[in-house]
Amino acid sequence: MDIFSKIAAGEIPSYKCAESDKFYAFLDINPLAKGHTLVIPRREVDYYFDLEDGEIAEMAVFAKKVAKAIKAAFPCRKVGMAVLGLEVAHAHIHLVPMQTEGDMNFANPKLKLSPEEFEEIARKIREKF
Amino acid sequence: MDIFSKIAAGEIPSYKCAESDKFYAFLDINPLAKGHTLVIPRREVDYYFDLEDGEIAEMAVFAKKVAKAIKAAFPCRKVGMAVLGLEVAHAHIHLVPMQTEGDMNFANPKLKLSPEEFEEIARKIREKF
Repeated sequence: MDIFSKIAAGEIPSYKCAESDKFYAFLDINPLAKGHTLVIPRREVDYYFDLEDGEIAEMAVFAKKVAKAIKAAFPCRKVGMAVLGLEVAHAHIHLVPMQTEGDMNFANPKLKLSPEEFEEIARKIREKF
Repeated sequence: MDIFSKIAAGEIPSYKCAESDKFYAFLDINPLAKGHTLVIPRREVDYYFDLEDGEIAEMAVFAKKVAKAIKAAFPCRKVGMAVLGLEVAHAHIHLVPMQTEGDMNFANPKLKLSPEEFEEIARKIREKF
């Protein structure tokens, strides 16, 4: 199993934000902003656009629900979305609370947060999901 | 109508890459890479995550088909996806051919292309769609 499959299976700990039978959402540990979350399919697929039509459709709806929870927990202008995927070979959607478009620049310095801060952020998102 | 609705309706010219009854894909005129395409719903919705579940699901499948066409026309490691949406108030998905994750940095300088180059790029994507 790849690292994200192990996270979704609970074999590697993560700050869980939401889950369903097919998808799992957890905090990015190198966040661009408080509330920066990753959404993954439990199925191991490297390239996002290789997901089956039904999967990519369901994942979009699941990600929407997670984005709504993030925005409710961390007020922002919009939640931005990005799929890059050249570093971890398991499809994942980034969801990032934005005040400006520059907040989605992955070259920005990442926040340094304590385990307690990550857990508090994840708890807030779980409560809104 | 907003500018993107006018583009989808053909009232403002664009370099069309693909279309359906509900969605329209055209070249970003400030591209990060050759093949950088925008996918929009014809319906006027500002915030991407305000799309109805059925719409966001269909849009993901349509964007996947466009991404496959872009990758066939412009070989790359993966096609990246981003939704920012603070500058134009009509939901739109960016699709960008990537060789590195840095290629998706919207702070990068944009390509300067001639109308003939844009038309050639759009034609190649249309042929693969």
